[in-house]
Amino acid sequence: MAKAPILTPQAEDFPRWYQDLINKAELADNGPVRGTMVIRPYAYGLWERMQSEMDARIKKTGTQNAYFPLFIPQSYLTKEAEHVEGFAPELAVVTHGGGKELDEPVVVRPTSETIINEYFSKWVQSHRDLPLLINQWANVVRWELRPRLFLRTTEFLWQEGHTAHATFEDARDFAALIHQDVYGDFMRNILAIDTIPGRKTVKERFAGAINTLTHEAMMGDGKALQMCTSHELGQNFAKAFNTTYLKGEGEREFVWQTSWGSTTRMVGALIMSHGDDSGLRVPPRLAAVQAVVLAIKGDEAVLAKVREIGAQLEAAGVRVVVDDRTDTPFGRRAVDWELKGVPVRIEVGPRDLENGTAMLVRRIAGGKEPVSVDALAALVPGILEEDQALLLQQTRERRLARTVDVTSIEEAVEAAATGFARISWAELGPEGEAKLASEGVTVRCLVAEDGSVPAEDDQPGNVAIVARAY
Amino acid sequence: MAKAPILTPQAEDFPRWYQDLINKAELADNGPVRGTMVIRPYAYGLWERMQSEMDARIKKTGTQNAYFPLFIPQSYLTKEAEHVEGFAPELAVVTHGGGKELDEPVVVRPTSETIINEYFSKWVQSHRDLPLLINQWANVVRWELRPRLFLRTTEFLWQEGHTAHATFEDARDFAALIHQDVYGDFMRNILAIDTIPGRKTVKERFAGAINTLTHEAMMGDGKALQMCTSHELGQNFAKAFNTTYLKGEGEREFVWQTSWGSTTRMVGALIMSHGDDSGLRVPPRLAAVQAVVLAIKGDEAVLAKVREIGAQLEAAGVRVVVDDRTDTPFGRRAVDWELKGVPVRIEVGPRDLENGTAMLVRRIAGGKEPVSVDALAALVPGILEEDQALLLQQTRERRLARTVDVTSIEEAVEAAATGFARISWAELGPEGEAKLASEGVTVRCLVAEDGSVPAEDDQPGNVAIVARAY
Repeated sequence: MAKAPILTPQAEDFPRWYQDLINKAELADNGPVRGTMVIRPYAYGLWERMQSEMDARIKKTGTQNAYFPLFIPQSYLTKEAEHVEGFAPELAVVTHGGGKELDEPVVVRPTSETIINEYFSKWVQSHRDLPLLINQWANVVRWELRPRLFLRTTEFLWQEGHTAHATFEDARDFAALIHQDVYGDFMRNILAIDTIPGRKTVKERFAGAINTLTHEAMMGDGKALQMCTSHELGQNFAKAFNTTYLKGEGEREFVWQTSWGSTTRMVGALIMSHGDDSGLRVPPRLAAVQAVVLAIKGDEAVLAKVREIGAQLEAAGVRVVVDDRTDTPFGRRAVDWELKGVPVRIEVGPRDLENGTAMLVRRIAGGKEPVSVDALAALVPGILEEDQALLLQQTRERRLARTVDVTSIEEAVEAAATGFARISWAELGPEGEAKLASEGVTVRCLVAEDGSVPAEDDQPGNVAIVARAY
Repeated sequence: MAKAPILTPQAEDFPRWYQDLINKAELADNGPVRGTMVIRPYAYGLWERMQSEMDARIKKTGTQNAYFPLFIPQSYLTKEAEHVEGFAPELAVVTHGGGKELDEPVVVRPTSETIINEYFSKWVQSHRDLPLLINQWANVVRWELRPRLFLRTTEFLWQEGHTAHATFEDARDFAALIHQDVYGDFMRNILAIDTIPGRKTVKERFAGAINTLTHEAMMGDGKALQMCTSHELGQNFAKAFNTTYLKGEGEREFVWQTSWGSTTRMVGALIMSHGDDSGLRVPPRLAAVQAVVLAIKGDEAVLAKVREIGAQLEAAGVRVVVDDRTDTPFGRRAVDWELKGVPVRIEVGPRDLENGTAMLVRRIAGGKEPVSVDALAALVPGILEEDQALLLQQTRERRLARTVDVTSIEEAVEAAATGFARISWAELGPEGEAKLASEGVTVRCLVAEDGSVPAEDDQPGNVAIVARAY
């Protein structure tokens, strides 16, 4: 007799599967104010691990964390023309504070380029103050009309990096460093998500940037998700806020800047990249819980054994939890760990004890088999590394299998129904991009002929990756 | 010839010394919106270390981190009568979002009891869901009319714990556990700040609590600073939000709750507890930089030696920075490290090389002496532990020296000009408390005769600790 599925199957309705999984695995709830989100402990644990891995990579570049205010005077936003045009429709505005109407309304930060430049212009005086490399972990607010948990929320959590450099080249190189060594490395080696590193078209650039680099990933349903972006800001904000340095002999020069961000949207990407009809699958290097040891029944001998196995795995460097809550039925607990995507389950019951074995269940590669208890501590670390690699490989294979080369807009739209299309940018161009947009298909990024990130939009041989996107 | 002091001396003007230090050590700037604050990298690094130490202690109690929205519907605040009365005058209100006026104004969280209870009431069903132990790291906003950097800011960063329990006793015990094992341990063993653990009077309780526990510390000028608080909320919020659990046989009971918080104000406490006329002094266990190795000149041999010493100290488990920025004058760098309060400075110049020594400068215990380079790695870890203990001892000695027992309100007011006064609560009572308040002196907390935290305000022998406070 087939069990009724806990989640709507992906093939039946992917968005509903996503929503079901978030509910059943207790990842998040909708907040009371439209578009806001409550991040529940298990999902917040994923975010904490993402933060810690990302933060270490950011610090390795010499960047330091700081904190700038949530509230920005409305007048700051208007100093950079493209910037205000891009963000004005999404702003939340505080008009009253401390029981009084404010003289000047205050904006809840949608991003911090403006307020940070106000301080950079004070802190930067000489070339010795450069590069100035700052990051902050913070919440930001962009009023969202079509919210979706993790993917598009009115308030989200992120890191935003902001840097100032002496030259165009220094800023360009730093944006590329973040794109490759921080974001690229993190996506590939921690999230186990294959991405296409590329360059945004003018239409898709950040409001106020001269260039935007992106990582685009294919989700389980073939749609694209922008994972993170790094921007070259040129001297746009420097000019708006008069951020200059003494170049020598009394000559002042505007600084060259970058900004770059990654958000709680990555939790949504994780779900839609690795999840299956049984729930989430968490890459072992990210997982706060890499293995769970379950007592099937509450016998003393079984409880002693699961604790012993837990201690052995911990000693072997595995992040392990012992589940001895035997007042909750075993089946329900097993399903819950499966939903939550813990990579390895080790199940121990009275019969296993007799045989000196435990049932090893692999959430990522699949399969279950009895394993000698003595072999577990040596076995599990290897399994975790294998599974980490497998997840990355699966996302890569999916992308390759669902990407087609096309030569017309019609073919591109058709291909975007199930995956990505590749089309010559020289042939598509901004006009073709506008036509695609009217069909709900966007240019996710441009890549060079050899797969690298192009230095210019119009570099010969550039290919546009087009898709429907979250 | 005496050098002009870099900071206003403490004895001359303590508030100005505080402001000077924050500027000169580059700890923080005022934000553009009144009362907001920019936390600069060095101070943010102190906060990060506080977070990591505090977070580990919080997790040890079984509490998990989560995240709740910044925006709270105004109607939530009004559900608990005392709570809204306490916070209404301090609220920031968002009236416009996404270019439109909102149907219901939204409050920027001043604290999250209300929005968290909205979810607790959904998540808690049976006694098996209890205790529910949640913490969040977040920013909160309380409009501040008399702002002071770190101590009173319109926006501040904090952790706020929120828990639900089956019984009054469980909640009471958990609030006490946080007060002692999390906050008490952290203040004493990491911040090296001696505190008085006590109980707030009814007048000083958190808005909506049935009991508030506090740690009160004496700053360098003899004034008190409330370091953190833990509240027993009774069933007040549970009743307002209908947060109940099934007690057995169909009978539902309201949960018993706690909340507890500690904030970026602790950075201010650190400055005012340990700082001196030369700058900050950071307790070694908290310090992100415990030792700095300075090259006095840029000779190759000197540079090689400072790097070698740096590597040796790192291998000995010391958090060390090598300062080889010899294009900046040595004197300026030395003063900067002194201002920033790095516990140990090791200075190496050409003459030291000849002798096989380095100059060891101790920021906390004071003094400088040449030490054999070979001895450093064995010596420094012990110095750091010694200095950690010394700072705690100094704050304790200051408190004892500047606390007097008094028997009248007049004496209490006089004593509060330079420190703390102890007065019988049975004699003072709420009426005396009101009289003191009219003189700007407050009851910081009640302590039992034996120094423990009293179970009741009116427990015989209770002593009121009274002082002027930040």
